[in-house]
Amino acid sequence: MPILRIFCDVRMSADELMALRRSVAPHEVLTRQSLAGSVLEEGEEDPGFQVADIVFGQPNTKSVLQAPHLRWVQVTSAGITRYDTPEFRTEAAARRIVVSNSSDVYAEACAEHVFSFMLAQSRVLPAALQNRSKAGDPAWDHLRSSARTLRGGSVVILGYGFIAKRLVEMLAPFQMAITAYRRRARGDEPVPIVTPQALGEALAIVDHVINILPDNADSRHFVSTERLAQMKSGAIFYNIGRGTTVDQDALLEALRSKKLGAAWLDVTEPEPLPADHPLRAEPNCFITPHIAGGHQNETQTLVAHFLDNLQRFEKGEPLRNRVI
Amino acid sequence: MPILRIFCDVRMSADELMALRRSVAPHEVLTRQSLAGSVLEEGEEDPGFQVADIVFGQPNTKSVLQAPHLRWVQVTSAGITRYDTPEFRTEAAARRIVVSNSSDVYAEACAEHVFSFMLAQSRVLPAALQNRSKAGDPAWDHLRSSARTLRGGSVVILGYGFIAKRLVEMLAPFQMAITAYRRRARGDEPVPIVTPQALGEALAIVDHVINILPDNADSRHFVSTERLAQMKSGAIFYNIGRGTTVDQDALLEALRSKKLGAAWLDVTEPEPLPADHPLRAEPNCFITPHIAGGHQNETQTLVAHFLDNLQRFEKGEPLRNRVI
Repeated sequence: MPILRIFCDVRMSADELMALRRSVAPHEVLTRQSLAGSVLEEGEEDPGFQVADIVFGQPNTKSVLQAPHLRWVQVTSAGITRYDTPEFRTEAAARRIVVSNSSDVYAEACAEHVFSFMLAQSRVLPAALQNRSKAGDPAWDHLRSSARTLRGGSVVILGYGFIAKRLVEMLAPFQMAITAYRRRARGDEPVPIVTPQALGEALAIVDHVINILPDNADSRHFVSTERLAQMKSGAIFYNIGRGTTVDQDALLEALRSKKLGAAWLDVTEPEPLPADHPLRAEPNCFITPHIAGGHQNETQTLVAHFLDNLQRFEKGEPLRNRVI
Repeated sequence: MPILRIFCDVRMSADELMALRRSVAPHEVLTRQSLAGSVLEEGEEDPGFQVADIVFGQPNTKSVLQAPHLRWVQVTSAGITRYDTPEFRTEAAARRIVVSNSSDVYAEACAEHVFSFMLAQSRVLPAALQNRSKAGDPAWDHLRSSARTLRGGSVVILGYGFIAKRLVEMLAPFQMAITAYRRRARGDEPVPIVTPQALGEALAIVDHVINILPDNADSRHFVSTERLAQMKSGAIFYNIGRGTTVDQDALLEALRSKKLGAAWLDVTEPEPLPADHPLRAEPNCFITPHIAGGHQNETQTLVAHFLDNLQRFEKGEPLRNRVI
């Protein structure tokens, strides 16, 4: 078997890098080098691209398309915005470069994160953790009667991929009516798929709208004034996809008018949202700073995912989470 | 069929009461009356007890045991502390009075509440909702690397009843190692039961300790200095049972010494915990004011549960949630 050269620009400790080198041997791991005498922007040219067969990290598209030997890019995120353009897809296809992402690495944490939002909302945790009232007092009555169960509620998931698949599994014990929006149904989804034509009707009747759309040319401001208007009054909106997929002015208006019951956002545009952004002042808008994918031993699970795919690559088998 | 007299001391609106009367007809509903000229403490004698066949509410034990015709008490809570004494049990048995509680009404909400605690903890929601840092900043790195997934973790549930049963169903998609503590295994539990002798060993290895014990003579300060010392370092403790089952001084010490990673409490002793109680100042102690059972349409589900049991009572069938 030929020795493969793996250019790795993943931030990791010396120990983690040493473990990676041991795991891929006899293949070689190259790391980013600063070219003497020049100051490089992150992601710019690196001599590693000249020899790499594989890149593991977040390489820029130009470097990828100019790398003479490159055959596979393992991206370390679930999002692939940078690569998800017709130009890149065409060029990559022509040069027979495949791209896989790390959805499997983040799907569990992302699904658990949005699920934590759903439960925190239904159990009124933000208010309850501040409430020190006595049972029977008006403040307590109000709080307790605001609490909800998820069971029996209804959900539309915008964007059906690895995260949605896992979320559907997690919601199974709650006997909810779940549908998912996808441009085209593939037929293997475990829930009914809502097509673009039927989305308005679906939004009109559900309690929870969960946005997991990726960032691309089609998804920009997908959650628009019009789509927010289609939602049921008092619906709860969640976003763990990408901030760009939401028209934040429209979202703000939907919160202010009480059209939406609440919004829970792990992603915004920009990130972080400025301290004086009006969404930060909305009492029913809850924001976490893009940590949905975070979990214990993150680098190790990323590396394990890469190593699994490396074995597949060596054997000529289909890669996990291949996206291009 | 003889007309049954149902004494109801459940707080409900005039509409709800009218609906109850219609539903039980031809049986009669009696409500609490103030005796002219005297000031009564809540739960004291009421002429209704002299004629009632059934009580629906929270009657005091003396009134129950002196009611000449009473055959069944439907308690509107899951907890039955007031009735759970050897004296009451003996007297009630002698007088052939049965007692059922409303566990089924609260099990869903209580299980969802403690599940919301587990996910809020693992997704570091209290800190994340305050964090406005930028990806890559030290504060962000710290937060994101603190986030966890529940999947693959381990749990001991103290007290196996209706709530635990439902919680086990909810945790099924998370591939956790779940055991439950119960004085005596009945053999129909879906998870391994830990007996009193083996509890120390079980506590030593689990990530999450969930307390759903009821309040009775055996459970007082069950979670003691000794039991807290048996827990794994960094374990997370949850209580949605009763506050009396925890030695709060010991809990405080376990949090201060970092033996416990965090505590999430829906119940305390007393309730509410005073504003200056030291547990309120602990950064890793999260308290909600005894709202775990709260949910939409609570009175309606209580009444529906009672009506279901009333049908069973009329037919001589076993009552749901019979406890005495």
